[in-house]
Amino acid sequence: MENFADRLLSAIDEKMSPIVVGLDPRLAQIPEHIKARSLRCYGSGLRATIDAMVDFNTQIIDAIADIIPAVKPQMAFYEQFGSAGVEAYERTVEHARSRGLLVIGDGKRNDIGSTAQAYADGHLGRVQVLGKNEPVAMFDTDALTVNGYLGRDGIAPFSKICCEQGKGIFVLVRTSNDSAGDLQDLSIMISKDKVYEIMGMLVSNMGAAYVGERGYSSLGAVVGATYPEEAAKLRLLMPKSLFLVPGYGAQGGGADDVVPCFNDDGYGAIVNSSRGIIFAYQKGPESAKYEPAQFAHASLDAVIRMRDDINSALLKVDKCPNYLR
Amino acid sequence: MENFADRLLSAIDEKMSPIVVGLDPRLAQIPEHIKARSLRCYGSGLRATIDAMVDFNTQIIDAIADIIPAVKPQMAFYEQFGSAGVEAYERTVEHARSRGLLVIGDGKRNDIGSTAQAYADGHLGRVQVLGKNEPVAMFDTDALTVNGYLGRDGIAPFSKICCEQGKGIFVLVRTSNDSAGDLQDLSIMISKDKVYEIMGMLVSNMGAAYVGERGYSSLGAVVGATYPEEAAKLRLLMPKSLFLVPGYGAQGGGADDVVPCFNDDGYGAIVNSSRGIIFAYQKGPESAKYEPAQFAHASLDAVIRMRDDINSALLKVDKCPNYLR
Repeated sequence: MENFADRLLSAIDEKMSPIVVGLDPRLAQIPEHIKARSLRCYGSGLRATIDAMVDFNTQIIDAIADIIPAVKPQMAFYEQFGSAGVEAYERTVEHARSRGLLVIGDGKRNDIGSTAQAYADGHLGRVQVLGKNEPVAMFDTDALTVNGYLGRDGIAPFSKICCEQGKGIFVLVRTSNDSAGDLQDLSIMISKDKVYEIMGMLVSNMGAAYVGERGYSSLGAVVGATYPEEAAKLRLLMPKSLFLVPGYGAQGGGADDVVPCFNDDGYGAIVNSSRGIIFAYQKGPESAKYEPAQFAHASLDAVIRMRDDINSALLKVDKCPNYLR
Repeated sequence: MENFADRLLSAIDEKMSPIVVGLDPRLAQIPEHIKARSLRCYGSGLRATIDAMVDFNTQIIDAIADIIPAVKPQMAFYEQFGSAGVEAYERTVEHARSRGLLVIGDGKRNDIGSTAQAYADGHLGRVQVLGKNEPVAMFDTDALTVNGYLGRDGIAPFSKICCEQGKGIFVLVRTSNDSAGDLQDLSIMISKDKVYEIMGMLVSNMGAAYVGERGYSSLGAVVGATYPEEAAKLRLLMPKSLFLVPGYGAQGGGADDVVPCFNDDGYGAIVNSSRGIIFAYQKGPESAKYEPAQFAHASLDAVIRMRDDINSALLKVDKCPNYLR
């Protein structure tokens, strides 16, 4: 199967934007008319809750599928509703794929080798079920976020499947939150490198075996937009790694902050926004223009603004991708 | 609600063993007669698969519930089967609780604060669903394993819920796998502390607010049995933290290796075994004695051997818990 990094880069060129939209359907922010319809159909409870989530996601996906390459459902917002919530995740993934989008599952999964294998199989590979001759795909997402605190043998089962199945992973290197520095900024003796730099080099070295024809590896890294100086260092340390960049928009990062995550060729990063897109009808500079019923339209407008914002920032520093030439 | 650490210590005294059994129902190792029955009931596919997992778990739980305080289902082995697998997890948790066991969900969940909140709500707290006035409990496990690479604000939503709901967490400090040292052994400049020691101090400081009447905090740590010297250091660094100790048995740790995880009072740790107990009918020194149909009986014998093994090792070094006095 085609290399994930190559598939993602093709999709970025096709859609002319290095953007991934996070599908974090926080119930309190889903428009009332959607929730009211779900309640009418299913009555109070879990079924109505997950129906509203899936309906909301479906309309957002349909609105923006033509101009973004990928979506990133955040598993926490589904899993919190138990197995019913995970079913909503499955339906969301399925719909996004049916619209030709790449799907990056944001699970930050991690465990020791033999257990990490089960996560890798379920999210990116195939699992053996009773009575079937061939293993079957379960979540079948294109990529997964992974926490590498356990070291190489916790990452290896995921990276192995990337190779076999044309999938990708993004390992947490520099997270976007305020207390990212608690561990990640500690300086290591001997080399003076910081922990996040060590994690970056680890990912870069492991990723060398998964470089596609476009020169990027399917073993990527999560690098927060809220730390542009650290991102610039990491860009040099791991030139062939794709960065999944959270922190743009709601978390405070701007277009200029994400630019250091890109290489001079205008590629190397895919920038995520979740709340800033899917709840654009409710928040942000343009929100007054929209009725709740127009939430999907608002998400389309927001993603176009974000795309133009980032593409302009890239052009300004001559990091020009093929699709802008 | 009563403090988790107090509840766990009471259960350890009542069952006279500081043991947690990992419920990792690897399909290939579930006895054939169980899988055959599930296939007869449900035909080929996912339903039969999860039925076999739940049936297997139920019989193991029933066999050993009287002599262990807690079980630890490993989420990866359920989640790999998608929402159906997560349903098997829910049913396993429910059965274990109905048998009076404490349940430690092994999910190693982690994310930035606002997203970590969703995991915390779903696993340990309550979530708001459509049309209900009161939030409802979903997984409702007693404790959860958490990966702290994101720093304090990634841990805080979990620890806050511990206080409010009488729940606990175990933060990965020193994992049990071969490559644990890749990140965790790096030495930090200035203090010469290693990353896992910094993580330990972080957990210890955050946990001070969650100490129960028995002197232990509900904010615990995962410390692998395969690194006894590091465990001894951590025991001194974080005397009030409960340790969840993986690595005994199948991963190579012995009773003497887990002893450093205990304080002089004979408490402070709960030792996990997964494969070594639930698949004792198949592996291990005594396996030849059992038919597959006796797998649950084999698990009971294995857990008794493990309990006696650990209690003897504790007595040998005068770390004597109340229940052995």
